[in-house]
Amino acid sequence: MPKKVDHELRREDVGRAAYLVIAEKGLAAATLREVARKAGMSSALMVHYIKSKDQLLLAAHEYSAKLVRRRMQAIEKKHQGLEAFRRIVWESLPHDKERRGIFKLWLGFWEMAGQDPQVRAKLNAGYRESQERYEFHLRKAQALGELPPNLDIAFCAWSASVFLDGIGVQTLLGDNMISSQMQKKHLDGWIDAALQSPNSLRKAVGAARPKKPSKPKLSRARRP
Amino acid sequence: MPKKVDHELRREDVGRAAYLVIAEKGLAAATLREVARKAGMSSALMVHYIKSKDQLLLAAHEYSAKLVRRRMQAIEKKHQGLEAFRRIVWESLPHDKERRGIFKLWLGFWEMAGQDPQVRAKLNAGYRESQERYEFHLRKAQALGELPPNLDIAFCAWSASVFLDGIGVQTLLGDNMISSQMQKKHLDGWIDAALQSPNSLRKAVGAARPKKPSKPKLSRARRP
Repeated sequence: MPKKVDHELRREDVGRAAYLVIAEKGLAAATLREVARKAGMSSALMVHYIKSKDQLLLAAHEYSAKLVRRRMQAIEKKHQGLEAFRRIVWESLPHDKERRGIFKLWLGFWEMAGQDPQVRAKLNAGYRESQERYEFHLRKAQALGELPPNLDIAFCAWSASVFLDGIGVQTLLGDNMISSQMQKKHLDGWIDAALQSPNSLRKAVGAARPKKPSKPKLSRARRP
Repeated sequence: MPKKVDHELRREDVGRAAYLVIAEKGLAAATLREVARKAGMSSALMVHYIKSKDQLLLAAHEYSAKLVRRRMQAIEKKHQGLEAFRRIVWESLPHDKERRGIFKLWLGFWEMAGQDPQVRAKLNAGYRESQERYEFHLRKAQALGELPPNLDIAFCAWSASVFLDGIGVQTLLGDNMISSQMQKKHLDGWIDAALQSPNSLRKAVGAARPKKPSKPKLSRARRP
């Protein structure tokens, strides 16, 4: 069935092209026309694969998620426990041009998450995947005796996402564009500190996962 | 000169209305028409004050920045050193409906910073103002003997912004919407830990402020 194969290959080409354009320019400035050119196809043909900006974002994400996942798995083959955790978080930091590009995709998710439930679902699936990966390695580090047994693993894993998002914003949007060296210093500081904080050593209040507040009053626009 | 006064009052009304609408719906879903209605004026009249989405954002920001500044100054009258610092960071956390609203303005800045140099300049002026405020209180805490003398103040102040942005993203965009209680736990954990990390106790590499890397290769779209 050669037609089927073509179709899937093309879809991958489109995802790769979308990723490259967004990583270069950001979602707001990326156009379907430019993605078509990058993918080496006509705009008319590309419309079969991508019709809107959110589809552009999702296609780019699908491509980049595979890329990132493969790198994390490579780290996991060589390292474990705290060292694996440290390298995985480092891998996600926007510490070089390529990784700043991948972070721009996340900015795109934030831009569209308020308006598009599908984008929001993907964004949260991404956070959950990271959370699980962080928890896995922190538990392993605990088992290896690298971390105290009473560490609140879910809390620490989740605060890794807080740390990453914060660095990402400051690096990509703030004028204080942070050097790679400075990001490393922040990462090491955060790991050393976060995993030793008295708060990390107590289990989270109520449940391991942060709970929704009793009155979720955010507007529908932002929480579809 | 009654005309002049009217004009300024109206400008403030528009800023307040813009703030209320963005805080409720987010920038993407806010319309000029709705802001006009909220300000109690016709769309035709409002066009004299606001013509575009970035102007909407900037007007809302001007209003909310005054509001927030006044609150911080009230904290500074009652508290000093580490306690003032802790309360000021807490004030900025999206821990209730109103403060989540103010944080939505920041999301608006992130959305537009890549495309509009004026928005980006305001965003960075905001970060600088916070940075200075944090540094001031951390130095005071040092002088009071609450913090070690070799603490890297600029690094710690800056990592407070990283912390705040990260919590903001996770609270407003992630599904793990974090309770106020959980934000408090994160804040206390971060303060206890960050200010004791071995990395915080060393001066930043090179300079106190993070420096731009030698090859600032981000695309123009994101760094105008």
